[in-house]
Order: sequence, then C-alpha cells, then structure tokens
Amino acid sequence: MTDTILILNGPNLNLLGRREPHIYGTDTLDHIESLILVRAKELAIEIDMRQSNHEGQIIDWIQKPGEKSSGILLNAGAYTHSSIAIYDALKASSLPTIEVHLSNPHAREPFRHRSYVSPGSVGIISGFGANSYLLALDAMATLLSA
Amino acid sequence: MTDTILILNGPNLNLLGRREPHIYGTDTLDHIESLILVRAKELAIEIDMRQSNHEGQIIDWIQKPGEKSSGILLNAGAYTHSSIAIYDALKASSLPTIEVHLSNPHAREPFRHRSYVSPGSVGIISGFGANSYLLALDAMATLLSA
Amino acid sequence: MTDTILILNGPNLNLLGRREPHIYGTDTLDHIESLILVRAKELAIEIDMRQSNHEGQIIDWIQKPGEKSSGILLNAGAYTHSSIAIYDALKASSLPTIEVHLSNPHAREPFRHRSYVSPGSVGIISGFGANSYLLALDAMATLLSA
Amino acid sequence: MTDTILILNGPNLNLLGRREPHIYGTDTLDHIESLILVRAKELAIEIDMRQSNHEGQIIDWIQKPGEKSSGILLNAGAYTHSSIAIYDALKASSLPTIEVHLSNPHAREPFRHRSYVSPGSVGIISGFGANSYLLALDAMATLLSA
Amino acid sequence: MTDTILILNGPNLNLLGRREPHIYGTDTLDHIESLILVRAKELAIEIDMRQSNHEGQIIDWIQKPGEKSSGILLNAGAYTHSSIAIYDALKASSLPTIEVHLSNPHAREPFRHRSYVSPGSVGIISGFGANSYLLALDAMATLLSA
Amino acid sequence: MTDTILILNGPNLNLLGRREPHIYGTDTLDHIESLILVRAKELAIEIDMRQSNHEGQIIDWIQKPGEKSSGILLNAGAYTHSSIAIYDALKASSLPTIEVHLSNPHAREPFRHRSYVSPGSVGIISGFGANSYLLALDAMATLLSA
Amino acid sequence: MTDTILILNGPNLNLLGRREPHIYGTDTLDHIESLILVRAKELAIEIDMRQSNHEGQIIDWIQKPGEKSSGILLNAGAYTHSSIAIYDALKASSLPTIEVHLSNPHAREPFRHRSYVSPGSVGIISGFGANSYLLALDAMATLLSA
Amino acid sequence: MTDTILILNGPNLNLLGRREPHIYGTDTLDHIESLILVRAKELAIEIDMRQSNHEGQIIDWIQKPGEKSSGILLNAGAYTHSSIAIYDALKASSLPTIEVHLSNPHAREPFRHRSYVSPGSVGIISGFGANSYLLALDAMATLLSA
Amino acid sequence: MTDTILILNGPNLNLLGRREPHIYGTDTLDHIESLILVRAKELAIEIDMRQSNHEGQIIDWIQKPGEKSSGILLNAGAYTHSSIAIYDALKASSLPTIEVHLSNPHAREPFRHRSYVSPGSVGIISGFGANSYLLALDAMATLLSA
Amino acid sequence: MTDTILILNGPNLNLLGRREPHIYGTDTLDHIESLILVRAKELAIEIDMRQSNHEGQIIDWIQKPGEKSSGILLNAGAYTHSSIAIYDALKASSLPTIEVHLSNPHAREPFRHRSYVSPGSVGIISGFGANSYLLALDAMATLLSA
Amino acid sequence: MTDTILILNGPNLNLLGRREPHIYGTDTLDHIESLILVRAKELAIEIDMRQSNHEGQIIDWIQKPGEKSSGILLNAGAYTHSSIAIYDALKASSLPTIEVHLSNPHAREPFRHRSYVSPGSVGIISGFGANSYLLALDAMATLLSA
Amino acid sequence: MTDTILILNGPNLNLLGRREPHIYGTDTLDHIESLILVRAKELAIEIDMRQSNHEGQIIDWIQKPGEKSSGILLNAGAYTHSSIAIYDALKASSLPTIEVHLSNPHAREPFRHRSYVSPGSVGIISGFGANSYLLALDAMATLLSA
Repeated sequence: MTDTILILNGPNLNLLGRREPHIYGTDTLDHIESLILVRAKELAIEIDMRQSNHEGQIIDWIQKPGEKSSGILLNAGAYTHSSIAIYDALKASSLPTIEVHLSNPHAREPFRHRSYVSPGSVGIISGFGANSYLLALDAMATLLSA
Repeated sequence: MTDTILILNGPNLNLLGRREPHIYGTDTLDHIESLILVRAKELAIEIDMRQSNHEGQIIDWIQKPGEKSSGILLNAGAYTHSSIAIYDALKASSLPTIEVHLSNPHAREPFRHRSYVSPGSVGIISGFGANSYLLALDAMATLLSA
Repeated sequence: MTDTILILNGPNLNLLGRREPHIYGTDTLDHIESLILVRAKELAIEIDMRQSNHEGQIIDWIQKPGEKSSGILLNAGAYTHSSIAIYDALKASSLPTIEVHLSNPHAREPFRHRSYVSPGSVGIISGFGANSYLLALDAMATLLSA
Repeated sequence: MTDTILILNGPNLNLLGRREPHIYGTDTLDHIESLILVRAKELAIEIDMRQSNHEGQIIDWIQKPGEKSSGILLNAGAYTHSSIAIYDALKASSLPTIEVHLSNPHAREPFRHRSYVSPGSVGIISGFGANSYLLALDAMATLLSA
Repeated sequence: MTDTILILNGPNLNLLGRREPHIYGTDTLDHIESLILVRAKELAIEIDMRQSNHEGQIIDWIQKPGEKSSGILLNAGAYTHSSIAIYDALKASSLPTIEVHLSNPHAREPFRHRSYVSPGSVGIISGFGANSYLLALDAMATLLSA
Repeated sequence: MTDTILILNGPNLNLLGRREPHIYGTDTLDHIESLILVRAKELAIEIDMRQSNHEGQIIDWIQKPGEKSSGILLNAGAYTHSSIAIYDALKASSLPTIEVHLSNPHAREPFRHRSYVSPGSVGIISGFGANSYLLALDAMATLLSA
Repeated sequence: MTDTILILNGPNLNLLGRREPHIYGTDTLDHIESLILVRAKELAIEIDMRQSNHEGQIIDWIQKPGEKSSGILLNAGAYTHSSIAIYDALKASSLPTIEVHLSNPHAREPFRHRSYVSPGSVGIISGFGANSYLLALDAMATLLSA
Repeated sequence: MTDTILILNGPNLNLLGRREPHIYGTDTLDHIESLILVRAKELAIEIDMRQSNHEGQIIDWIQKPGEKSSGILLNAGAYTHSSIAIYDALKASSLPTIEVHLSNPHAREPFRHRSYVSPGSVGIISGFGANSYLLALDAMATLLSA
Repeated sequence: MTDTILILNGPNLNLLGRREPHIYGTDTLDHIESLILVRAKELAIEIDMRQSNHEGQIIDWIQKPGEKSSGILLNAGAYTHSSIAIYDALKASSLPTIEVHLSNPHAREPFRHRSYVSPGSVGIISGFGANSYLLALDAMATLLSA
Repeated sequence: MTDTILILNGPNLNLLGRREPHIYGTDTLDHIESLILVRAKELAIEIDMRQSNHEGQIIDWIQKPGEKSSGILLNAGAYTHSSIAIYDALKASSLPTIEVHLSNPHAREPFRHRSYVSPGSVGIISGFGANSYLLALDAMATLLSA
Repeated sequence: MTDTILILNGPNLNLLGRREPHIYGTDTLDHIESLILVRAKELAIEIDMRQSNHEGQIIDWIQKPGEKSSGILLNAGAYTHSSIAIYDALKASSLPTIEVHLSNPHAREPFRHRSYVSPGSVGIISGFGANSYLLALDAMATLLSA
Repeated sequence: MTDTILILNGPNLNLLGRREPHIYGTDTLDHIESLILVRAKELAIEIDMRQSNHEGQIIDWIQKPGEKSSGILLNAGAYTHSSIAIYDALKASSLPTIEVHLSNPHAREPFRHRSYVSPGSVGIISGFGANSYLLALDAMATLLSA
C-alpha cells in the first residue's frame, strides 16, 4: 500500500510569499505544495498537506492523521516555541515526525530558540526554504523504507 | 435543585489509555467518565463532561458553564502551564474551580511546574490517576454543601 | 472612500463589566462599542469590531481584515503576553496596528509585562478604560490622514 | 490487620486556628484530628497523628513510621519548600506518601512554589482546609485497597 | 478655574529633531510645544512645559507642580527605566500622571522595557511621535472632567 | 507589670568571641548578656536570653515565648537566610520582633543578603557588634511604651 | 570639641508626613529634626541636617561634610538601591556612616532589597520610623566615644 | 569543474560506532564516508572528509578549505555548543555551510541546546543518523546548482 | 597521644544499605564503620562516629568535637546543599574537616551541585562508596602528621 | 583651527589621590590635568577639562561641548554602569567619544562590568592610571587627523 | 599483567611550583610524579603521566590511552569547567576515570564550580595538593582489584 | 638590553582584511605588523608577533614567551570570552599583559561582553582598529620604563 505523508503547517504559513520575504522567500505555500507533489510522485508517496492558524486544530490533526498516514512533516510556525500541547500530542502519536522550518530559527530572536517540537521529533531540517520540505520528504521516505 | 458539575478536559486528554500509559495509566477518558457518573449518582450530582484540544474552546466553556452548573473541575492539560487567558477566565468566573491532574506535574519536566490554573482555583488534586477526579468530585460536593 | 478600522478584542474581553471591575471598570464591551461608534461617526470612519477567545481566530482576522480595512486596533488580552503567532501575523500585515489595553499591564503581575504585540504595533495606549479605545481611534485617524 | 496511617505535620501547624486565619482557617489541629478520626473509623483505619517544628524529627518519623503503618500523609509546612533531607527520607521509605496542604501554596509567595515533597509523593491534595486531610485519607484508603 | 497641565520632559528631549531622527522624528521640542498649545487652547487648558537633564530637578517639579496644576504629562526619557526616586515622587503626588513616549520603548533594547513610571501613572501613550503628547492631553482633559 | 523581652540567638552565636573575630568581634555571648542586663535594669525591663543551634527549637521558643514576654529580639544567625519556617512563626506571633545582627549581612556573601526574618519584623538593627543588642533593646522599650 | 553629625536625607524625604503615611508615618521631616535636636542636646552633639532630591548633591555633601563633622547618618531614599556613585563616595570618606531607613526596605518591593549604601556603612537601622534616626544617633555617639 | 564539498567532523566523531550507540548508532565514520562517496558520485561531486578533536584544527580547515571547495558540511560535535571562534571562522568564510548532527541536540542536555554553528550556517539537518550527511549533501548540491 | 577523628554523618545516612542501593550501594553504615575501624587501627587513630537527622545536632557536634578530636570527616548528606549554619560552624572550628560523599553529587540533580560544606573544608572525596571514608581517613592521617 | 578636546570626569573623580589609592593611585585630578596639558601642547590640541558629581551636568556638557570641541574623553565614573541617559546623550552627539578609566572595571565587582558608555564610544582605554588619559588623547588626535 | 594508570594533566599544570603557590603549593609536577612513582611501585602499578595545554590533545589521549591502560586519573585544569568535548570522550571511554584537583574548585570563583568532568568520572578527590594524586591512585587500585 | 614585546593574536585574526571589514576594517595582520614595527623602532623595542587558531598554542606561548620578552600584548580573539585556561596562564605569567581588541566587544553580542583576559591584564585598549596595537605598544613602553 502506498504511504501517505501528512504535512502540517502552522500559523501564518498561509501567508508565504508575501510575509517578510527577506526571511521566508517569495514562494507561496501552494507553490511549495506543487514542488512537494512532484517529489512525492517520484518517491511513490501520497501527500496530505494542511495549514491552520489554530493550535487546537494542529493537535486534532496530529491525533487523527488519517488511516493511511505513515508519517508527519510538521512546520508548526510560531507554535514551535510555545506549545507544550503539541509536544504532548507528538509524544502520544505512533507516527514518526520530522520538524521542518523554512528559515533557521536559531539565527533569529531568542524566543525562537526553544522548540517544543524537537524533543517529539525524529529529526530536524531547517533553513533551506522550500527545499526543507523536499529534503524532509526524502528523509521520511528513507525512514519508512528502513 | 440538583447541582451540575462541569468537568473540563484540555488537550490530548481524549487520548487517555494509549498516550504514555506509564505516566497516565491505561484508563480511557470514557472509562473515567463512567466512574465519575457512578460517584456523582451517589452524591446526587449531575455531570457535564467535555474535552477539547482548543484553548479558546475551554475559555468559552468556562465563561458559559450552563445555567445549572455550580462548580468546575478543570484538567487543563498542557494549557495549565502556559494559558494566562484561562487564568483570566477563571478569575472572572463566579463558580468555584478545582484543578485536577492524573499525574503529578511537579514530578515531571520543569516547564510543567508553573500552573496558571492554581491561582484561579480553590484547590488542587493531582497524582491519583482516575481517582483524582473522584476525589475532586467529593471535594466539590463538600464545598457546595458548606 | 471611507476608512474602516478593524477593532479586535481577545480572550475574556466579552466579559467586560462583570470581570474584576476594580481592574477593568464596569462598562460592557457593547457599551464601549457604542461609544466607539459615536466617535467614529465624528471622524467619518467605519468600525468593524469583533471579539474571540480563540488565538487562531484573531490571527485569521489579522490576516483577512476585510477589503476596506485601513487599520487595526488590537486588544489581544492575555494573548498579548504569550502569542508569538499574533506577532508574526502583525509583521506580515500591511495595515498599521495600535495596541490597546483598558488597564496598564505594567502595573500588574510580571507575566503581563512582556508584550509580543508591542513590537508589531505603531503605538500603545493603555490604562484609560473605555477611553483607551477612543484615543486609539483618534490616533489611527491621524495616522491615516497623514 | 487494620492499616495505620501516619499523619505528619510540620512547623507551625500546631498554631492552626490562631495563625493567619484568612489563609489557614479557624480550625485547630486538634479539631482537624477529631474530624480525621471520625472519617478513619468509617474507613476502618487507625490514625497516628504527630506534629513537630523540627526538620530532623520529621525525618526520624518518616524513617521509623511504626510497624503497623501502611502509608503517610505529610503536611511538611514550610519545610516543603526547602528540605532536600525530607525528600531523601521519602525516597528511602517503602510507604506511599500523599502531600497535603490546607491552603494552595502555588497561589502564595514564589518561595512556596517549589516543593521537595512532591517528587517523593504519590499525589498532592491542597487548598481545601481541613477537608484536604479527609480527602487524602480517602485517597490513601483507595491506594491501600488497590 | 482653568486647569493647568504640567508637562515634564526628561534627559535629552531638548535635543529632539537632531537626535536619532529615525527613532524620534524630526520635530523639535519647541515645535511640539506649539502643537500642544494649539490643542490646549481648544481644550481651554493652560500648559506649563519644562525640560531637564537632571533627575533631581524632575523630582523637584513633581513635588511642587505649581498651585494651579491639575495633572502631569511625564516623558521621563531614559530615567523612565532606572529612577525609583521618580516612582516614589509620583506615588506621593496627588495629581494624576500620564506616561508619554514619542517612540515605543518595548520595541527597543531590553533595558528600556522596564518602566518605573508606569506603576505610578494612570495610563500610558507611546509610539505616536508628537501626537503622543496631544493624545495624552486629550486623555488628561477627559480625566479631569470626569 | 514589668515587661520581659525574649532574646533569641541562633546557630553558632554561642561561639562568639572565638568565631571569626575580624567579623564578629571578641565579645562572648555571656559578656553581651551582661551588658544587656545592665541596660535592661536602666529600662526596668526583664530579660530572657537563650541560644540554640536547632531551627526547630527557635520556632518552639517563638511560639511559646513565656507568659510575661512582651517582645522578641531575634538574631537568627544563618537561619535568617534560609528559614521560611521561622518566618511563618514570626507572622503567627502576636509579639513585636526586632531583627538583630552583630555584623552587616549585606556587606558579606550574596547568600546572606536574603532575610526571611525581615518581613516578619518591626525593624532591623545590624552592624554595631554588641551594641546592636543594646540599641534594639532601647527600640523595643520605646515600642512597648508607645 | 563637640562632635557634629551630618544627617543626609535623599529624594522625597522632604515629603514625609503626606507621602504614603501607611508606610512612612505622619511625622514631617521638620518634626523628626526637632526630635533629633532634643536627643543631640542630651548627647552633647551638634547636628547638621540636610535634604536633597539630587543624587549629585548628596555626593557633594558626603565629599565635603564640613570641617567639624565626625560622622554621617544617611537615609539615601530611593538612591539607596541604584547609586553606585554614592557607594563610591562613602568608600572614599573618612567618616563613619550609619544607614538609616524609616521603614524596612526588605519588607517591600524586590527592587528595594539591594542596597549600595550598606557595604559602605558601619551599620544599619531601619523600620522604627522617626526613632530610627534617634537610635542611629545613639549608635554614632557610642562609636565616636569608643 | 566538479565541486568539492568539505566535510568536517569535530571531537569524538572518530569514535562513532562504539561511543554510546543508543544515541549515535552503530555505524563507524568510515562506513558513513563510504555511504557519502556513493551519493557524491551520483551527484557528480568530490568529497574531502576530515576529523579532528582540536578546535584550532577545525578553524584552520574552515579558513583554508582547499581551492576547489564549494561548500562545507560541518558536524562540530561538542564544539557546536561552546566555540565562538568557529562561529567567527564561519562568518569569515565565503563558502556556504550546512550544520549536520547525527542525533538531535535539542532532545538532549540543556548545554547542547545552544549552537554557535547555527547562526553561521545556511541550514541545519539533525537527527537522521548517517542519513543526515546524505541529506545535507543533497541540500548542498541544490544550493550550489541554484 | 593518639589522634581521634570525629566522623559525622547527616540525614538519612542511617538508612544506608536499603535506601536507593543503585546510588548508595548495599553497605550499611555499621558495616562501613567496621571497615573504618580496621583502617583506623592500622593508622593508630581513634574513631568517634555519629549520625543524626538533625541539622542542629550536627552543628552541636562540630562545635564540641570532644577534647581529643584532631579532625572531622563530614558527610552532611542533604544538609550539604542548604545549611549555611553548618558552613558557619566549620569556619568557627579549629579542626581540619574533609567533606565525604558516597556518591558524586555533581552527577545528580542540580540542587545537589551547590555545597556549603566545600568552602569550609580542606578537601573533598566523593564517589567511591564506603571507600570514600577510608580514603578520607588516609588523607586526614597525612594532614595530621604533616 | 586648533582642535579642543573636552575631557569629562564623573562622580568622585575630584577625590583622586585620596580615594582608595590601591585602586586609583595617588595622583590627584589636578596633577593628571597637568600631565594632559603637556601632552596636549605636544599634539597642538586645546583641552577643556571638567568634573561633576551630577549625572545631569555631565549630560548637559555632552549636549553643549562648546563650539570648538572636536572630541570627548569621558570617564563617567560610577555613572558608566547605570546611566542610560548618558548613553542617549552620546548617541545624539556628533563628536567622537573615547571611554577612559583609571582602573579596569572588568577586574572589579560585577556591577561594574556593564558599561552604558561603551556602545556610545569609538573605543575604550582602561587600567593605565593617569596614562589612560594620555593614551586616549593620542588616540583622539589620530582619529581627528584621519 | 601489571595495570598501567594513565595520568592526564591539563593546561598550566606544567607550571606547578611557580604558578600561584598560595593556591597550588610549591611542588613541581615532576616532584609530584616522583611521589606518584613511589606509591605506584608499592601498589605494583605502572604509571604513564602526561601534560598538555591543548584540549584536543587531552581528548586524543583519552581516546587512545594505550593498550595496557586500565584507568585514568584526570586533572583537566581549566578545561574541567568548559569542555563538553572532554565529557563526551570520557563517556565514550571504557576505562574508569577519577577526577583530581590540587585545590578545591568549589572554594574558588563561580566559573570553577561547574565540572564537565564529574559526570563522566567514578569519583572526585580534590583539595589535598600532591596528595590528591596519591589518594586517587589508591582509589583506582582498589577499583581495579574489586 | 632592548625589551622585546610578545604580541599574540588569537583565532581568525590571520583573516584580517577580508573578514567582516565593517567590523574589523580592511587592514591585514601583516600590514598591522608593519605599522607596529615602525612604532617599535621609534620606541627602541623589539617585536615578536605571532598568530594561532589554537587555544593551547596561545597558552604555550604565554608560558614560554622567550627569554628576552618583557611584556605581552594579547588579542585573544574569540577565546577572550571563553578561555579560563588563558586566564590561568596570564595569572601564572610574570610578564605584564595588555588586552587589545580592534573593535569594541562591549558594543557587540552579549556573549562577547565577558572577558577572561581582563582580570589577568594590566589594562585594556579596544575599538581603535590597528591603532589599538600602537597605543598598547606605547602603554607597554611606559609601563616598562616606569
């Protein structure tokens, strides 16, 4: 059966392309999704990509990833730095999670240096713009085939 | 008139029984509710038990507990440690609140040691698994009959 | 074309008038809105005033303020002190924002001294009760006419 | 054989009833003991209740609870917040311990927020005045019958 | 009798217009005073505006505001962040005080985030350049007529 | 009836005269007591002076100062800096207490800068060697005659 | 030759009697001076008492206490907690200094717990209202006659 | 011309395979190098892989990466968390650097949470064991071909 | 004359052998004493070994070590980390003291990393179980014969 | 036209030569001025040297250095460590400033390690006694001739 | 086969005997080695003693202790307090390590209180000068024969 | 005999001229050396200038400065802020040391504000680019001729 990867995007990521392009680049989230779909096809993986500004919604999705989901890519945006509840949801999940960021949070303000997502994840990929998602997809494919 | 106790459960508590059973035990939230209903019947109290992963939803419920509600048992889960907004809602509420936890947050990670629920509550009962809820129900019954 | 000012109110502000009146006064949010409408009429400005207890909802509103909106007055309540996500939304917004508070957070508990709204705002008006909103409306009118 | 519960009270608890009644209530420790004895009789449990202002004495008692003791209720008073030695004694004890407080320390001064008793205890009950002891007795009875 | 408002300006505010114009704008203090006088005339209020680089001078003025003074607008400049003595003077004063800043200190260096003026003031207006003074004058007029 | 002043001395004060004379001077505690008795006679006051190395003993004495005692002079030694339990005992006491130190703790190691005795005392006298006790006795006599 | 004691009073102490009487009492500084003069006469000591709101003025006075001055009583008010410059002046002075406070700073806000005057002083007397000055005068007389 | 990627490994990475395999896995550094060479061949990239326990040696290598080097993969091991000098070397380098870790430092001890390498790097890949290097190689290839 | 070494053991050390054997080992304090006596005989030294759970008792013993005592081995247990009073007693003692621990406190919880015993001791030996005492005895013998 | 260098000296520097000579040396400020004048003559520079204990005075001087002044040497004494207002004055000044200290503040108490003068200065020279001023004069001459 | 003990000495220990003799004594490292050799002979142990100022060199030695080495005595000097890399090397080593110091770091500056060597060591011996090494040798011999 | 001054340069200083010229300027280290040699000739002083990226190498050089060396100028680069070992080497050295920096570390990132070199140096000169070295040379010449 084909693996489905759930890709969850947190607050303000729907604004990609117009929000602070010097930090996040000019690609929109839709454009990134199209790049992901191309790579997913090569890897023979299905993609289920979502975005929400609501912390509770992201927790709901982590709890109920869909029957066919085999792994999660999570770019929790600003909730990365404050949400113990997302951390608890990740720990309760049986799916492997990879933390993804477009930019490198550790090169920004101090309040972005703490991540509650990291200890609940297998690994972290950050700083490569849209390519962060593609690399994470590759990493997840390797994990799932191991 | 019979008192109704509002029992509010925060993020990830819907996962009870499969989430980290070495910390939270193997009882599901449904099972805990059935135990609560038995005890409530003995105490001649009505129960209105809810769960949400959304901080805003929990605040909504605290603000509008239902006409017949006389008190609140609140297990705010991870929001216990970060939600000033829940604290404000509790202070604005005219109902007595008891803070409940299945495990003992003070025996866990440092970021679980701060509680914004405590200063807005009458008392705290934590660490007894499902029995924490039953003891809190007893405590509330005593408070209401005082 | 007439400017519309979006006035966003965060958690528990719907309780105004009965929540801790020694801190927040006895005016309800509806009463404040009626005062705002009078002043807005004098300034020939339209008002779109909303309240939510949900952090995600406030972010949604900041992202989609409505086509005719020219500025935002934001009283983020308790989320002022914890929401990096609202800060990110403000930075991504092209509208000027003014931070508003009924009371003076810096004269209260230490956890109310940090504001994630301030660095995303043009200015701050706090401590004048309902009049904080009216002064902020005047300030916004001046900004927009500059 | 009947279980005996050792109830240990730390510094200044002998003053109950005249010490800061707005915080601790007007019940004396003797009166609380009489309430405990009534409840203990219902639960068919023996009680051995003691008080000392001496940290070392409390440690001695935890080390030598008496042959028939099956559990400990510990209200360590101000030593809760400073005594690593009591923490060590609890860890060395084979008896289950429940931490009890009349008031809610987390709603008071910061130096009362740290508890060295919590990580050595099964659970915590605080904030219900004399009823904290009765609830803890119930909780201990449930633990011992499990 | 006409109210007189005392407007006190702290260290370096005499340099306005040439000191870091990207932060403070290009208006001189004299120009701001002329704007204030226009607004004061509309409000039928007298103005007594002063500036000093000396912490002790500002305290002297707060202590002896002049017989006809009904309120104080205080832009304490850098002393805002360090002067406990000004805080004590404000607490001892019977006149209402409004804290004013041209820029938003909370969007600047961390050592400008603490304000000793805030807890001694009725409210705060910051970030609107010269208009901060005019808004504060309006706020004071409203306070005095209440 | 003649007032009796209870003078309590904490750990290591029995060593006065041989313990670090460059800090505490060369007077023994007995010698200081003889100086106190002379002054007490002049003031027509009785003295009850005690010393213990045991924190619990000092708490016992504060709780049971003796029927005729009208006030307490407390030099809690090193317990000054760590004993929340002594602080609680002072708050529960109906007698006025004056904190006394031979040397000035604020001119020594940082861990001697925090005093749990201060907030439970009327006033503090420190740094005058044996004379600290005599001055405190004068201060207490003035207090009692007020 | 008769000793002269310089008594220096810092910011806001000229307001004594109307500034926060629940903390500082209702005596004016003039009344305290009259009490001091009576005691000084008994001790055959001259008094030179001054007050200033200016940190620099207090430093000037410490540097040039007058030829006949033999000691300093210093109530530096709020500068106690922030002035390294006063500390340096005290260290450079050849006269013994006693730190005086009407109330007990250690029972107030945390920013009043640090004293830069203490390590430059012989001893501290605080918390006895006007009597703090009289006790300090006695202490100084004893020091000077030693 | 073929790009050469310099792969620098810091202290103790020569021990891979026998050092704490529950954290770092059982692959040796030689085995990882062989995996890298296979991937590099596919990407038509040359590899120059080195290891040293000496902070100064790693700085020397960053300064003089070899004429043909186009980018650096840096796993600085424990120096990641303490070396400001490596940070300075990275800032002075004209080559893009990717930070690589086998495990996720943010899920380990607090002293491994600070990275001086992150602010000097384009991006971070951590937590995927040997695969972290391969993903970083892919990321670098993408960067160099952009 | 034969030297006598005073060996003082603090709280919970009487539980050795049953308290957390994975940390403290399975030897009882009696067994350790027997090992010490054998070594002492070889060294021609007398031993006076005591244990108490009372901080005040340990201070009493340090103050009055017995006429023949030439040195102290002190394992203050949990009081190591909190007792400024023991530190003061050590500083006042004319006997050399060696700090002893069975386990290595610096490899345990952060609140065991601070030692008030260390700055009052000649040296420290920790982490060798019962052998820590024997090594300390050797060290003391060397010191005394120097 | 000849350059004039303004040399500003802060609190207590008028006491040089008698204040703590083990730290500041035995030279008086007058003697240092005479050394400076000799060097200035060699450099063909005019000197305008002043001293004040008043923070406000130093700010006034920085604001109005005199028409002919080309640079400032500033030894702000204890105000170095606390005066944000001096920092603001330096930033507003168009003249280059060099921070000067007789001793090395970083080798003294922690509260002397923070400098608000440093970020407003071109460079720092400290620790060479009177020679610090001469070296700073040389440095300023080089700056002005660049 | 005879055990060989590797004795590693960190930065500046080659200076022993002339570096700050009031802290480290007057023995040179060569003299200490000669004492060690005598004791080693009695214990029938071989010694391999080395010194380096290079952190990387010490790590190299820990990684490759020599085939015959059975244990390590490590006096890492100043690297004790900063080297996470040495800590990692110790954890990867299969040899038991004992931390040795001539003086007691916990009685010195705060930055010497943290040890990264302690959690990687069996035990600690500090404060006995050259004898620290001899005691550690005895402790190691006991460990190896256990 | 002619004095020789040892000039030691730490990590990355060999990159001067191409590393972040907005901070460090465009002069190469070779060019700075040539400027130094000219000045040295005027002062009749010999120069021995070295650079290393290795902390251990810098310590070796401080320990063995060469027989003819009379003083050290030390620009320890990034090791300034982390190397306790260099601090220990400086304390052990009999030569006077002057700390030199091209830029002003106190105007940069917080982790550059702490200097372990300062307490081991006679004085500090920073912020004057290449001229910092020349001024330090002058200062050393004055020291040596004193």
